[in-house]
Amino acid sequence: MWQDITYTNQVGAALDHALASTCCNRVFAITDQNTSRLVLPRLGSERLHGATLVTLPAGDEHKTLPSLQQVWQALSDGGATRQSMVVNVGGGMVTDLGGMAAATFKRGISFINVPTTLLGAVDAAAGGKTGINFNGLKNEIGVFAAASHVIISTCYFDTLPRQELRSGYAEMIKHAMLDGHEAFADTLSHEPTAEDPDTLLQLLEASTAVKQRIVSQDPTEQGVRRALNLGHTIGHALESLAMKKGRPVPHGYAVAWGLVAETILSHLLLGFPSADLQRLAQYVREHYGTPGVTCDDYPSLLELMRHDKKSRHGEINCTLLRQLGQPSLDHAIGDEDINTALDIARDYLD
Amino acid sequence: MWQDITYTNQVGAALDHALASTCCNRVFAITDQNTSRLVLPRLGSERLHGATLVTLPAGDEHKTLPSLQQVWQALSDGGATRQSMVVNVGGGMVTDLGGMAAATFKRGISFINVPTTLLGAVDAAAGGKTGINFNGLKNEIGVFAAASHVIISTCYFDTLPRQELRSGYAEMIKHAMLDGHEAFADTLSHEPTAEDPDTLLQLLEASTAVKQRIVSQDPTEQGVRRALNLGHTIGHALESLAMKKGRPVPHGYAVAWGLVAETILSHLLLGFPSADLQRLAQYVREHYGTPGVTCDDYPSLLELMRHDKKSRHGEINCTLLRQLGQPSLDHAIGDEDINTALDIARDYLD
Repeated sequence: MWQDITYTNQVGAALDHALASTCCNRVFAITDQNTSRLVLPRLGSERLHGATLVTLPAGDEHKTLPSLQQVWQALSDGGATRQSMVVNVGGGMVTDLGGMAAATFKRGISFINVPTTLLGAVDAAAGGKTGINFNGLKNEIGVFAAASHVIISTCYFDTLPRQELRSGYAEMIKHAMLDGHEAFADTLSHEPTAEDPDTLLQLLEASTAVKQRIVSQDPTEQGVRRALNLGHTIGHALESLAMKKGRPVPHGYAVAWGLVAETILSHLLLGFPSADLQRLAQYVREHYGTPGVTCDDYPSLLELMRHDKKSRHGEINCTLLRQLGQPSLDHAIGDEDINTALDIARDYLD
Repeated sequence: MWQDITYTNQVGAALDHALASTCCNRVFAITDQNTSRLVLPRLGSERLHGATLVTLPAGDEHKTLPSLQQVWQALSDGGATRQSMVVNVGGGMVTDLGGMAAATFKRGISFINVPTTLLGAVDAAAGGKTGINFNGLKNEIGVFAAASHVIISTCYFDTLPRQELRSGYAEMIKHAMLDGHEAFADTLSHEPTAEDPDTLLQLLEASTAVKQRIVSQDPTEQGVRRALNLGHTIGHALESLAMKKGRPVPHGYAVAWGLVAETILSHLLLGFPSADLQRLAQYVREHYGTPGVTCDDYPSLLELMRHDKKSRHGEINCTLLRQLGQPSLDHAIGDEDINTALDIARDYLD
């Protein structure tokens, strides 16, 4: 998988350069109601002016088949061909869904991702995963397909609520934990803020490099890429449970809590150092608060973990860490160990 | 792209062997109302007994998003994981749609194709194209994804109307034309019939080998694979027009007529030998009759050709032949030449 990734706060110029370098006959821009209002007017791209604009309702709850159908319809009605280009401008919902629409239209046309949220920049936009939620399950339907270009910036993060920035920062903590001591210390010594976009862009570039290094070794998640699932088995379950209860939490908050719980498992099962676990738990409690679950939620959480894409033969599968920078893949974890980790995580975070 | 293709009329044993060779946790069988009634009881597979059965309404008019959604729902409700297997038993509608469902479920699970029609065996089941019709356009949505196993047989063709066999045979004529003089003479000296399944299986194996040779060089249709589009630019337009008029024709009939019209273009533009053209036209008139279009249909046909997936920059794109076995790709054909070819084709076929 090859992707041209540009880190810049001169987004319009970078986008025009990317569009000029591809010989495409028509451009379709996919956005949501927020980015269409807050970002598009500031984008400063010459070449996007003539594009056909498709505006989706905002929010992950619209990352669904009807929205996908809306994009397919616009591409089909607009006469898109295999030589056309889709430009996704938005958060993970837009880049995941717009990427899937492009990758499945006439068996695949090219697309460019312009993530406008921290979570989108650090996680969704690069790496070649696309998808929609289906049957109440996150990314149940999707394909592996890489954007030809990804333009990563921080200059639109001032349009985001603080909570959105924190949510994205949790994935940066995960990348730092996979990278090693230096990245971990560096990341936990900063706070997610839009006040200094250029410093954040540098942190983001270092963080994305960790992901790129792993993804390039394993684009379709047969092996080492599963390291990136750190925190996500328990994190996804917490996120799904919150959604079921009608009190949805931002993805990154659930990931932050999942990181704590799975680092506890790493400590119990692989001897991950206690001091680093304490440091992580302290940062997460301070910036992300508590998941607010009780023992009564454990059976539902276990059931959700068993339905995770990473699950095999009904076992709960986690990526663990021997220490910072040393992931250990594919641990089948018993229910008792999960329950214990949730107990200890609640002690740390409540 | 690697596919394990088996030619056999012992289908149940071959399917059991394929399923035993893959370590899958759950099996989902996708069929339509016809194959579920006429083929499944004769399949003789032990391992398919425990499968979750998904039965779609029969016919290409159901190769649509609602049917795809039905399969996704069944996979999701049935707890399919990345270690599950989809077995598509049916014609091109089932293998195209079931293949797409598998290839997009949790970003891709494995599938086995068991084509039960000649057209499905020779064209749809092997080669790694999946898709559904959308917005009134054939295969508008889809992905490139290869079945891990394809089990090709002729023993269920006795369940098909004669017209279905003729339809599939048109693709075998196309393969023969791409292969050379010997294959062409051999194919036109036979008639499509289910009376001698073992001879037909041999012809089919030779024909599929032509396609495999081309596809293996170019799985995603960047170059030489476009040779397989011979007859399909004009053929698809004739098929779409017939559908719009509410008098649908079998795919292969439209391809047979398209082969005649595009061989006329090959004769006019590249000097394809007249004697081979005459031989083809005679066979097609005898077995496929006439497309029944008039000059009044030409503007609609040209418009449909311009919307073809193969079209670039609004030009009509055809694969032509210098002579039997010598395809020449990517000819941009002017409207006048298309009109002339349609005139001459009507002279031959009416």
